[in-house]
Parts: sequence; structure tokens; C-alpha cells
Amino acid sequence: MNPDPDYSAAYVVIGTDAGDGLEGHGFAFTIGRGNDVQVAAIRALEPFVLGASVDAIGDVWHRLVHDSQLRWLGPEKGVMHMAISAVVNALWDLAAKRAGKPLWQLLAEMEPEALVDLVDFRYITDALTRDEALAILRRAQSGREERTARLLADGYPAYTTTPGWLGYSDAKLTRLCQEALTAGYEQIKLKVGADLEDDVRRLRIARAVCGPDIRIAVDANQRWDVGDAIAWMRALGPYDPYWIEEPTSPDDILGHAAIRRAVHPIRVATGEHVQNRVVFKQLMQAQAIDVVQIDAARVAGVNENLAILLLAAKFGLPVCPHAGGVGLCELVQHLAMFDYVAVSGSLEGRVIEYVDHLHEHFVDPVVVERARYLAPTAPGFSAQMTTEAIAAHRYPGGTVWTQPQPSHA
Amino acid sequence: MNPDPDYSAAYVVIGTDAGDGLEGHGFAFTIGRGNDVQVAAIRALEPFVLGASVDAIGDVWHRLVHDSQLRWLGPEKGVMHMAISAVVNALWDLAAKRAGKPLWQLLAEMEPEALVDLVDFRYITDALTRDEALAILRRAQSGREERTARLLADGYPAYTTTPGWLGYSDAKLTRLCQEALTAGYEQIKLKVGADLEDDVRRLRIARAVCGPDIRIAVDANQRWDVGDAIAWMRALGPYDPYWIEEPTSPDDILGHAAIRRAVHPIRVATGEHVQNRVVFKQLMQAQAIDVVQIDAARVAGVNENLAILLLAAKFGLPVCPHAGGVGLCELVQHLAMFDYVAVSGSLEGRVIEYVDHLHEHFVDPVVVERARYLAPTAPGFSAQMTTEAIAAHRYPGGTVWTQPQPSHA
Repeated sequence: MNPDPDYSAAYVVIGTDAGDGLEGHGFAFTIGRGNDVQVAAIRALEPFVLGASVDAIGDVWHRLVHDSQLRWLGPEKGVMHMAISAVVNALWDLAAKRAGKPLWQLLAEMEPEALVDLVDFRYITDALTRDEALAILRRAQSGREERTARLLADGYPAYTTTPGWLGYSDAKLTRLCQEALTAGYEQIKLKVGADLEDDVRRLRIARAVCGPDIRIAVDANQRWDVGDAIAWMRALGPYDPYWIEEPTSPDDILGHAAIRRAVHPIRVATGEHVQNRVVFKQLMQAQAIDVVQIDAARVAGVNENLAILLLAAKFGLPVCPHAGGVGLCELVQHLAMFDYVAVSGSLEGRVIEYVDHLHEHFVDPVVVERARYLAPTAPGFSAQMTTEAIAAHRYPGGTVWTQPQPSHA
Repeated sequence: MNPDPDYSAAYVVIGTDAGDGLEGHGFAFTIGRGNDVQVAAIRALEPFVLGASVDAIGDVWHRLVHDSQLRWLGPEKGVMHMAISAVVNALWDLAAKRAGKPLWQLLAEMEPEALVDLVDFRYITDALTRDEALAILRRAQSGREERTARLLADGYPAYTTTPGWLGYSDAKLTRLCQEALTAGYEQIKLKVGADLEDDVRRLRIARAVCGPDIRIAVDANQRWDVGDAIAWMRALGPYDPYWIEEPTSPDDILGHAAIRRAVHPIRVATGEHVQNRVVFKQLMQAQAIDVVQIDAARVAGVNENLAILLLAAKFGLPVCPHAGGVGLCELVQHLAMFDYVAVSGSLEGRVIEYVDHLHEHFVDPVVVERARYLAPTAPGFSAQMTTEAIAAHRYPGGTVWTQPQPSHA
């Protein structure tokens, strides 16, 4: 579905008059065309941020999401919502820098009442009330210090998509699976959906290399209609796929539910394109998914992801974030770690996607060792690109645009 | 929910090298802020349209909707989808002008095979296959001439929202209800959701003026959570509201289903903010709505609305289009009339919203007489604004922007 991505980002920097030199960085990740539309959308949000206090992110969030004119363009979805994500995440990056803490820790140390104040319960009260959210957070207060210590010592489990891209030879697939095992991964993921015969062969090879105990997830990137998804996954069933990710349209709640009923015990996962908390709510209400794949930069930033983490906790579902792209690993690790310390309190069935590229552009890049994300300790949301990377990629003056580049073909 | 709309449009004009002087006009309606984002989104689509043939709208549609990079910004929702709507509708305006027919007639005279070729069945085949769509259209071929003649003679039923805006005095509400009756309307609509006591009083007054046989719909513009909607509508129940429109988030399929079960026999209507055919499909599958409110300029233009009309026919639900705004009445009348002649074949329970403003800006404005839309006969999609209106409203040079305007306050 994404044959020719040209990884891009509409990048936001927010400064203040505090005189402390701190900036908040955030971005909307895109895969090329349309990045200028994201820039226009972020520019449309400037008036809502100018003059606001970094201590009132909840208020800014509400003004951005519920502006009576801008919401006509959604509501709460697509380009405008991704723009809000970039701005809100930049504000959180700044808030965490000011607090001198990594974002996961800043959030994990907040009181339950302060956290629920960040959540907009509009349209989700039939599934999760403020009181229920408070109860979830209060229950998780017990053991926070212990989990924080364990997280700092051991990190958070990762899985790798490295072996799984389409178009690799069987020999390369075999080698990459072996390397993943050697690196300590207990889960890998294969892209599927282009050709059934190929997929059967690839999954058979991967299972043979990995043995029965390694989880092999598969990812269809929305290729299928409901019937196709069911037929395809039944054909892959003998090789014990752990989850099927994005089997169909991310908007199709009932479709995911039908697929899940039909392919049991294969798990169903989705979320990287799920537009907001209202759709996540229904995916849970309809028992349509087993795995909640939050994305850091699609819903309206940290605040809305907090609502989704709380919904997942209410429904007892594991959150296994989507990552990759530009900086998505950097951001989403904070949300998963906060979830572990202060919301779900569990690592059971939880794992963050890890894609090993483009981290060199970030000031505080992710560190994955022995198949685990190490907990970031630098203040902020790990969202800031290096001065050199920003200068080189800035459109239209950056050297990436003005100088001939090596071909990727 | 929309307290201060500033009616706007990102306006598209498409010319060709045919030398016939014909242009296709289309637009994304907005309510102010964000209109520039819509313009940026439409600009991003230019490369897909340049050099394309007006005879291949289906191909252009597919390239626009399924572009692998642009779809990341949706997929198929929000700003990008509304931009596609503007472009696709402009192409249809041009195609109808070239054919010398109003769009409703151009579509109604097409063969079923040609119509289904315009539809993208991706993600809806679990509810409607191509063969089922063909069968629906073939069944409707019988009686097309008779219905066309009846439509040209009698027009298509309209309802009015004029009496129903919030903030009117009881005396004004009474007078406007009486005027609607005098004008021949058999349905009116009242906005609700700001204050329950007010709503009860307003609906009681409207019912007293209108008597038991006039349908009084109410419209909450997404104000409520599920529980609020149910409680509020139970309180309004004694005054026999005909439908409750947009009781909650347009994304909340399961929420609409829960509301519908609870407020029966009051009908549930939604659609003006429903993002695409995938969500409409589910609203029907879940038995969440009684009334399908298509909008001409939110989903991806005529082609996607054709898919939605076919889904509605499959599920036996009436389509009662949303209109108002800038030019939405002008556009959507064509879709409803085409539906009557060539898809559903029925006027039973069907009615187009009519809002009596801004029609003076259009070359071929709607004509509503005795509470019925008269069928347009001029070639095109009725989408073209007058040269004067375009010149006056064009940003930033138009007189509306450069000269002091009278206050609307």
C-alpha cells in the first residue's frame, strides 16, 4: 500500500519568552506528497498557541480540537488532527524540558487527578468515565517506584520489522530472521498481502528459522476487504501468525470485528491510522481488536493518547505502539513507558515496534539493546532533531533540496 | 457547536484545451478558519488532474483517492478527502456541461455498467458487491422515463430549517413555523442541544403551531455523548420529533446504534460529517441510522456518493441530503434526483434540506417552489458561482476583503 514512501515531516518549533532558551519540538510525519498541506494546517494553528502558557496544555488542546470553525475540517481526524498532534507534542516536549525530566517520567509522576484533567472524555463516556479513569490511575499508583526502577534497569521490550519487508529474497529473509534471533528479539513482523503464495512461503521460512516460540506478526497495511482478509489469514494460519495488523480499512470497526471472530486465535491489531479516541473506543467496544497500536503523531498528541491508554486499560487490552517513520520510535517509547509505570502497570503482551533507521537525525535518539528500548533520561519528548538535520532538510533551502542526492533506487 | 460560522469555500475551476470555453467548477465548503488549508490541499491535487481526460473521471478519482503518499494524510477523510471532493465535483460539472445536460440527468441516463464502473467497492464488498449494485441499477431502469417526467413536472420534496435556529424568540419561532406551513412544507427542523428546558418549550410551541401531521426533525450538531442523547430525546419524545440528527460524534457508529435502540420510534439521522463510504457502510450494517444524510462536498465527490446511494438502496434506507452552507443545496439536489430516477426509484420518506441563503451567488441557483426543488435543466452540476461573486470574494483581492463590510452582528 505504501510502495514509494518519501519520509517527510512538517516540523514545529515552539519558543517562549521565558529566557531559558528551551524550545518545544514536534512534527507530523508524512510519506511525501501532502507534507506542504500539513505545514499549512500547522500554520493555521499558530494563533491558538501564541501567548498561551506551557502550563495550560489541556486548555490549548481544547481550543485547538474544539475550535468551532476548524472542526468543520474534521472533526478530529486527518490533516487537522495530525497538525494538532504536532503542536501538542511540541508543547509536551517543552514542558518536559522545563521540568528537567523525560516525558514518560513527568507523566508518570503526575497525580491521577492532574492526568485525568488532561483527558477529553467527550464522546467516550459510554465506555470510560472520568471516575473510572481516576480509579485506573489510582490503582496503578501502587508499585510505580518499583516499575520505574525496573524500567530504568531493563528497558521495555521491542520487536523488529527488519526481516519482514516485501521483496527480499528467501536467503535474505532467512539471514535477517537469524540476526533478529541473535539480537534477542522475541517477536518479528512480516509484511503480507501482495501475493498469497509468496506470503505462505515467506511465513513458512520465517517459522522454520525462528522455531515455535518466537512471535511472528504479519502486517497487511489495509490491503484487504473483510472477506479477503479472512481467506488470506486462514491460509497463513498453519504457520501460527501472532497478530494480523491492519487487515483492512482503519475506519472499519465492524469489519475488524468480523475478521477477528473468523481468524481466532490469531490476534487482530490496528491503530497507526486510527483517527481518534472515538474510533479506538468502538474497536474496543466491538471486541474488534486484541492489540491497541497507538501512534504518537496521528491522534491529537499526548493528551488524546492518554485517553486511549486509559480506554485500553479499562478493556484490558495491551498497547503495542506503532513506530518507524521519522521520529515515531523516539516519541512513542515515552507513551508506552508511562503506560507501564502509571496506567496498565504491565508488560504482559506489550512490545514497541522498532525500525532501525533515521535515528541519527535526533538529538536524543532511541537506544535499543538486546531487543529492549532503554528508558530515555534526557529532559523532553526525544522529539528534537539535530541542528544539522534541520538545516539540511529544511525546505527549500536545505542541502538535501539544493544539492544532488545519491539515488535510493 | 457552530456558534460563529464564517461561510467560506476553497473554490476550484478546471479548464481544458478543448477550445469550447467550458469550465468545471467545484468547491470545498468551510465555515472560515482552515479555508486556506483546504486551498493548499486542492493545490496538492493539481498534478493528478493536469493532462487528464474529462472522459476518465473514474481513473482520476482512483489516482486521487489511492495515491500512496497522499493517503497517509487520511486515508479517505478530512481535509484531503474534501479537497478531492472539490476536484471530482468540478470534473463532473465540466462533464455535464460538455454533455449539455444537468448532472442528475447525465447520471440517470447512464447504463448500469457504466455507473458501477464509477464506484470503488474497496472496503464495502462485505455489504455491497458490484453484482448487487448492478442488480439495483437494473431494477431501477424500469420506470426511469416516467419518474423523470414526474420530477420535471413536480420537483423533489424539500424541508426547511428556517424556523429552527437557536436564539429566536417564541414569537419569531411561531411566526416562522406558520410561514413554513403556508409555504407548503411538510417537514421543518429545529436545532437542539443547548438547553433542555428551552428545547422542550420550543418543540412544544412548534408542535402546537404545526399540528400532528407535519414532521418536526431536530438537529443536535454532535453536541451529546451517548447517554446525554438518550436522556435528552426521551424528554423531547412527547412532542413527536421525526428524527434526531447528529446526536453525537459522526465517527461513533456504535453510539448511534445505541441511541437508535433507545429512542425508537424517533428516527436517527446523520451523514453531513460522515467521512466516507466505509463509515456509511457500518452505520447501515449496525442498524444505527434510519436516514442517510449525504453531503455533496465531504466524501470524495459524485463517485463516492454514488457508492453511498447504492448502499442505502441495498439497506432500504431513504437518503435525505444535508444542504445549506455555500452551494450545498445546488449540488446535492442533483444527487437526490438521480437517486429517485435511477437508483432507489422512490420519494417515500425522502426530502432535501433547504436553506434559503447565498443562492444569489450562483449562476444556476436552486429554485424551490411550494416546498419542492424544481429539477435543474441547465447543463452542469449547478456549481458555478457568478463572475461577480467570484471576483468579489476572491482572497485577497476581492472587494469583500478590500472594502469595509456591513457588520452581521
